[in-house]
Amino acid sequence: MPAKRQPIEYADASPDVRAVYDDIMATRQTDWINNFWKVLAHDPPTLRRIWANIKDVMGPGSLDPLTKELLYVAVSASNGCRYCIASHGAAARKKGMTEQQYSELLAIVGLANETNRMVTALDVDVDARFL
Amino acid sequence: MPAKRQPIEYADASPDVRAVYDDIMATRQTDWINNFWKVLAHDPPTLRRIWANIKDVMGPGSLDPLTKELLYVAVSASNGCRYCIASHGAAARKKGMTEQQYSELLAIVGLANETNRMVTALDVDVDARFL
Amino acid sequence: MPAKRQPIEYADASPDVRAVYDDIMATRQTDWINNFWKVLAHDPPTLRRIWANIKDVMGPGSLDPLTKELLYVAVSASNGCRYCIASHGAAARKKGMTEQQYSELLAIVGLANETNRMVTALDVDVDARFL
Amino acid sequence: MPAKRQPIEYADASPDVRAVYDDIMATRQTDWINNFWKVLAHDPPTLRRIWANIKDVMGPGSLDPLTKELLYVAVSASNGCRYCIASHGAAARKKGMTEQQYSELLAIVGLANETNRMVTALDVDVDARFL
Amino acid sequence: MPAKRQPIEYADASPDVRAVYDDIMATRQTDWINNFWKVLAHDPPTLRRIWANIKDVMGPGSLDPLTKELLYVAVSASNGCRYCIASHGAAARKKGMTEQQYSELLAIVGLANETNRMVTALDVDVDARFL
Amino acid sequence: MPAKRQPIEYADASPDVRAVYDDIMATRQTDWINNFWKVLAHDPPTLRRIWANIKDVMGPGSLDPLTKELLYVAVSASNGCRYCIASHGAAARKKGMTEQQYSELLAIVGLANETNRMVTALDVDVDARFL
Repeated sequence: MPAKRQPIEYADASPDVRAVYDDIMATRQTDWINNFWKVLAHDPPTLRRIWANIKDVMGPGSLDPLTKELLYVAVSASNGCRYCIASHGAAARKKGMTEQQYSELLAIVGLANETNRMVTALDVDVDARFL
Repeated sequence: MPAKRQPIEYADASPDVRAVYDDIMATRQTDWINNFWKVLAHDPPTLRRIWANIKDVMGPGSLDPLTKELLYVAVSASNGCRYCIASHGAAARKKGMTEQQYSELLAIVGLANETNRMVTALDVDVDARFL
Repeated sequence: MPAKRQPIEYADASPDVRAVYDDIMATRQTDWINNFWKVLAHDPPTLRRIWANIKDVMGPGSLDPLTKELLYVAVSASNGCRYCIASHGAAARKKGMTEQQYSELLAIVGLANETNRMVTALDVDVDARFL
Repeated sequence: MPAKRQPIEYADASPDVRAVYDDIMATRQTDWINNFWKVLAHDPPTLRRIWANIKDVMGPGSLDPLTKELLYVAVSASNGCRYCIASHGAAARKKGMTEQQYSELLAIVGLANETNRMVTALDVDVDARFL
Repeated sequence: MPAKRQPIEYADASPDVRAVYDDIMATRQTDWINNFWKVLAHDPPTLRRIWANIKDVMGPGSLDPLTKELLYVAVSASNGCRYCIASHGAAARKKGMTEQQYSELLAIVGLANETNRMVTALDVDVDARFL
Repeated sequence: MPAKRQPIEYADASPDVRAVYDDIMATRQTDWINNFWKVLAHDPPTLRRIWANIKDVMGPGSLDPLTKELLYVAVSASNGCRYCIASHGAAARKKGMTEQQYSELLAIVGLANETNRMVTALDVDVDARFL
């Protein structure tokens, strides 16, 4: 029983996994599937569930698609998820993120992590005006 | 020697601290200072330094002011900094963030935290197309 | 002075380090030592201390051995410790964890990380019934 | 526009929110709703989505219900989510978790956090046997 | 069964818990016990184990006692553990930490959190000279 | 547009980037630049800003230079930033950190992470004497 789950390619996938792959490609108007989904495919119910969540949360709403991707990239950068930065970074670039914008995003992620820790360590009381 | 640093009000502040308070109020076009700065004021060089960083990073750039605040709020929410969510949430609302947008932001923060952990735990290889 | 500490093999170990290695192998009924202990061996007091803690905490108790390993894997997955997921995942599989159970564990780790952040960001008050 | 979202009680909830509340109470065989759901109710699509995820992930599977709750509590404890520890701790106690088991769970959470950091800091190579 | 464990006072403690309390007070040359130990006392083996670890790790070594406390405070501040900052902050002050030193410590904690995230997000390769 | 930013060597750097490189080398009395700065160089304002912060925070103060580096290493180890452990670990060794001291530092980082989580999970009330 191998510890690391390898990507399951379309050709080797069961019909229910293929159905999710097809929906991902149709929704994203692309002809390939990235490794995250191919690894999740070892557990079809989770593959379906996570894809449904992504489709729902990242779909049309009051925040525009680029802003949504920028937020995803920022949280992923803050959490140090290398794969997620790469995949959502690519999605953000596809939606128009420039290198300059990415630099500014990273600066915000860094600074927020700095001030978040200082504020918490100093146990600053929330101002009445903010409540 | 009290462990918790209390906010230093303008009336009690030294001239160099007042200079930072004045610049914060002028930059933000407001007439008050929130507790974070008043607590940082116990250490004037840090007060000056952090304010200079915030002014620089959150100032005009290729990302619009609202997007910058949304990113700050998202990282703060991901890190669980209650004060920072309150203060940057207020700043974001002032710049136009609606409650619906805030709901979508929180949904992205939650989902990114979910997938970030799954991706890392599954040790998914970065796709060649992303490199 | 090399920055990265290399594993110290049994043949090269001092008597006090060998004594810990022997106890690990006897306790686990195995004939090899994994790298974590061999790297900790550069600091024998810490090697002894951490092994004593692991032996105590992961030894017989009111939670069965498999459940204890599942909890260790879940925390390691949540923290993104690749080595720990591999080593404690192997231990859990040896104690009976199935791939299906591992999939469910990862789903819980992911979802808990999602709701943990949402709950904290929303600053939800603890219900009186929970106090 | 108040920053902190207050719980929405059943009497004040819209029909679609009530439908989720009803399903939560029916599924859990209880007659009340805890604050997390009442606060999520400000954003009905997220309320529905998160509840569907919880129902799916925490429902019948290859891990028994108590083990699933223990894993949820362990991740929440590791993340320091006070509300989540309280709510999932209550759920775990309802499913049979004893105080002794909770003590052992916390000991594992603590120790895993200790060794996770040491392993990562020491950059221990994953043993070939674990790959 | 109450969810939150209350401190167990000396007068109400069992002999084995009192033995640990006595050792803490003798080691620290003080006449009181702080809440962390009194809450851990619900689980005597963990109380004994954690105290033994603290006594060992924080005892005499190649780092002086004040530096050890500063490191403990810095990690606790970085992790946002309010109680730990208060208790180890008090211990550090007792050993000579000045308010100015505490300010510098917090500045380092903040800045390290900033650069840690930027470095990880940028996936900077470790320089050959550092290996 | 490549996702991963490669180091910008001195020979290829713009004058304003070279100015920062020169200041880093002069301040550190060394003749090379490590990768972090060369990668930050894609965004000159951030390069200048982060270097100014490091120079300020890590410069002369009430904590001696070695203690400052130890604190930086400890936070980086706690956060699992491999590059930062390598670079600040090298700086600490240059300033006198012994391998024995590094072992003790890692033991504190590990133990603080253990007790931080236990304290937070147990929701221990801060003792009146600490307030």
